[in-house]
Amino acid sequence: MHRLSVGGRMAQAASLCTPEGRALCFHLQQSPVTMDASEFRRRGKEMVDYVADYMEGIEGRQVYPDVEPGYLRPLIPTTAPQEPDTFEDIINDVEKIIMPGVTHWHSPYFFAYFPTASSYPSMLADMLCGAIGCIGFSWAASPACTELETVMMDWLGKMLQLPEAFLAGNAGEGGGVIQGSASEATLVALLAARTKVTRRLQAASPGLTQAAIMEKLVAYSSDQAHSSVERAGLIGGVKLKAIPSDGKFAMRASALQEALERDKAAGLIPFFVVATLGTTSCCSFDNLLEVGPICIKEDVWLHIDAAYAGSAFICPEFRPLLNGVEFADSFNFNPHKWLLVNFDCSAMWVKKRTDLTGAFKLDPVYLKHSHQDSGLITDYRHWQLPLGRRFRSLKMWFVFRMYGIKGLQAYIRKHVQLSHEFESLVQQDPRFEICAEVTLGLVCFRLKGSNKLTKALLERINNAKKIHLVPCHLRDKFVLRFAICSRTVESAHVQLAWEHIRGLATELLKAEKE
Amino acid sequence: MHRLSVGGRMAQAASLCTPEGRALCFHLQQSPVTMDASEFRRRGKEMVDYVADYMEGIEGRQVYPDVEPGYLRPLIPTTAPQEPDTFEDIINDVEKIIMPGVTHWHSPYFFAYFPTASSYPSMLADMLCGAIGCIGFSWAASPACTELETVMMDWLGKMLQLPEAFLAGNAGEGGGVIQGSASEATLVALLAARTKVTRRLQAASPGLTQAAIMEKLVAYSSDQAHSSVERAGLIGGVKLKAIPSDGKFAMRASALQEALERDKAAGLIPFFVVATLGTTSCCSFDNLLEVGPICIKEDVWLHIDAAYAGSAFICPEFRPLLNGVEFADSFNFNPHKWLLVNFDCSAMWVKKRTDLTGAFKLDPVYLKHSHQDSGLITDYRHWQLPLGRRFRSLKMWFVFRMYGIKGLQAYIRKHVQLSHEFESLVQQDPRFEICAEVTLGLVCFRLKGSNKLTKALLERINNAKKIHLVPCHLRDKFVLRFAICSRTVESAHVQLAWEHIRGLATELLKAEKE
Repeated sequence: MHRLSVGGRMAQAASLCTPEGRALCFHLQQSPVTMDASEFRRRGKEMVDYVADYMEGIEGRQVYPDVEPGYLRPLIPTTAPQEPDTFEDIINDVEKIIMPGVTHWHSPYFFAYFPTASSYPSMLADMLCGAIGCIGFSWAASPACTELETVMMDWLGKMLQLPEAFLAGNAGEGGGVIQGSASEATLVALLAARTKVTRRLQAASPGLTQAAIMEKLVAYSSDQAHSSVERAGLIGGVKLKAIPSDGKFAMRASALQEALERDKAAGLIPFFVVATLGTTSCCSFDNLLEVGPICIKEDVWLHIDAAYAGSAFICPEFRPLLNGVEFADSFNFNPHKWLLVNFDCSAMWVKKRTDLTGAFKLDPVYLKHSHQDSGLITDYRHWQLPLGRRFRSLKMWFVFRMYGIKGLQAYIRKHVQLSHEFESLVQQDPRFEICAEVTLGLVCFRLKGSNKLTKALLERINNAKKIHLVPCHLRDKFVLRFAICSRTVESAHVQLAWEHIRGLATELLKAEKE
Repeated sequence: MHRLSVGGRMAQAASLCTPEGRALCFHLQQSPVTMDASEFRRRGKEMVDYVADYMEGIEGRQVYPDVEPGYLRPLIPTTAPQEPDTFEDIINDVEKIIMPGVTHWHSPYFFAYFPTASSYPSMLADMLCGAIGCIGFSWAASPACTELETVMMDWLGKMLQLPEAFLAGNAGEGGGVIQGSASEATLVALLAARTKVTRRLQAASPGLTQAAIMEKLVAYSSDQAHSSVERAGLIGGVKLKAIPSDGKFAMRASALQEALERDKAAGLIPFFVVATLGTTSCCSFDNLLEVGPICIKEDVWLHIDAAYAGSAFICPEFRPLLNGVEFADSFNFNPHKWLLVNFDCSAMWVKKRTDLTGAFKLDPVYLKHSHQDSGLITDYRHWQLPLGRRFRSLKMWFVFRMYGIKGLQAYIRKHVQLSHEFESLVQQDPRFEICAEVTLGLVCFRLKGSNKLTKALLERINNAKKIHLVPCHLRDKFVLRFAICSRTVESAHVQLAWEHIRGLATELLKAEKE
């Protein structure tokens, strides 16, 4: 059987040479026009070293870049090249053009947003994922891709001690799926809930149109929920109401019940509640044990968004924060945030898989396959918004096996310990205050006094660019968020960051007095 | 400044050793509990070789697996390990557990669905993307990530000779964005169109509720459009009507105009049309030059879905297929299908970026940054469904530069040539018929006679597992789709595939006679 040969490709490349193309010919001898396997072996290994060098040296790079908007366009040509560039040209340009504009999320001086995961085992798995390069929309499109995902989601569900009903097992009604992001998981849950309530109401009153129902549907989340929840409501074309959170920024029974009663009295139809475990602003926790039973009583879909905090529930000491998950219809968190699985990998479970698949199922002939009605198998395209999907469960498999549960628990605990270390440093300085309870890896703090003061401090921090963090509002307070993010952050980095902040505060307060 | 040392990590690992843990200690000496940079250098290079070996040897692997549903679960433990496994264990399991269940999309005997892209330059870029590991939801979250994407989308737009209005340039109102899939692009366009028409109608009649408007909104696509279009309608909560296509499976003016008139007369509000260039079933092309002016006249958003075919428009000889794009509001195709950029990379352009951002924009404090109102910059989170996003434009940059436009054109042309070669082989056999015009890399064919016959042929093909293809329906005909997919497919593979199909047909027809 005919095999492609490197020689064949080189010959093809050489045929591009024209009398005008001397430079090109020389060029091609250095680097063939289409990179072949042997060239990939060489360049791939160089790239492995580049990646390792980058990770090892990241502490030496300024965490937040100096560039101004529009910096990049003048640095590169206005059109793609007609003839190939060499790999050397490109890798040199990475340092010249790309790196100066990168915010280094994996620097130990990055304390902004929430962490995004990065680990070597995950990167290795991603290389394999790229090579297999299957698009696992159905079981048949690559059985291993679907089956490993189902089993990995069971592994992870067990690590979190999720109720059995959320696991796929051999014949469960529930199960897990990898979504691209928590935003998508929330949207998918909202759409499934919308379909479910619409069908229920139409079954009871066959004359009801979808639009008549949608006009009355109301979803709820705490006023601390992520903006993606509001967005899911916008996209789904339903009202979303914010429930005022309590003094600890948690959604409680009384406020939710009050909103439900008011809306039902007004003829509206409550159908969906999002409870957040670990809010983005201050890592507060909605009261699941209060909210859950209300959702059961009112026959309202309960979705739990634990995007950041979820990873911590693999530690027995943090698992109580998840108590009440048994009341939920769907649960989601992002291993790509805090469980060392590189983006994207957002883990979502449902108790009844038919609730999801019923909302989306469309089966054109070109996607049908002989096994699909066997009941044994899963076609994940019915569980998500896009059709295509990568072999992302390889990342979970590599990470879970190469760290082991104990290694992952140790990682979570180290981050939580570092945030408490920062908390106590802040507490020792009477000019500062802690603004919300520190439960996991986030510390919210500010200078006592006016918001203007803390804003000025943030400006000094951002101008210095030694560390990177972002602010938030907690009620009327402007607050700084210090999130433990990097895989390689240590006590020494946290202490240096605090010394830096303290120093800038001293300068600021001195300048204010003058 | 304190630096993490390998020694430190090893010491940590060693502390896990207990009197019961001898085996573990030995284990850890082979492979440290958390992989460090030097271990990654070693394992990463092994993985590069594994990937190259896989790609070089893929022809020797059976293209479609032998496994039955549920094959994988019994092969692996029921829970994640407490203690780390070694890399050797895992990589050995890849061959034992994963590969037997993989459908090899990059085998030269894979002719199913449409291609999914794979190239070495793209894989190299993906390694870098994983290492940088930034989440580019806003300009500030990593300026290089946003800016390279904007410029790469301009490069690609110019390669396709898109009208200037779709390019971002320095101060354009339009521009491009990388979506995860064509399904998401269609949904995003539909949602933007829904918001736009709702605002327009509410501005004219302030009393109108969103629900009253949504009840009347109608979207249209050809009856050959991808199932994701129907899904976008379902998700968006609007009616979607299928326009009967003509004898060449194309949407034409008359059928669309007829539907619009009928619906307007019934009090409905047409607001969105999806035109497909290169349908999934048979790669037919809606008539843009007819459909476009209708959309302009009726003030209806025109979205073009060219998921597969779009890549071909970089060749001047195929660019006329895109004529009429000037009438569109949004245009999308998937470089991750046919332009050698590994999944995911779905390229979407709009003429007015504010149409997209207006539909989604929500700005919590923790995502605000000092540059965001400068007008110079782009926050891509307002252009898409998820919040998070990878640095995917690196893949475009590496691929465009390492192939050059000429290399990419040569690649497209080779695939088109191979499909015509297959077409002419089919035409030479009087037992078979071609079922739709062959324009790009897809050939639709069948045995003359009953559908039962072609179904039986497909069953024989699937049982033999020497090649892999999938069927479709074209009107009442059951048809086989032969798509040129692999980067390494050559004339010899196509000819062998045809000989194989012919042989199975001969056996089948003989058996039918007996």
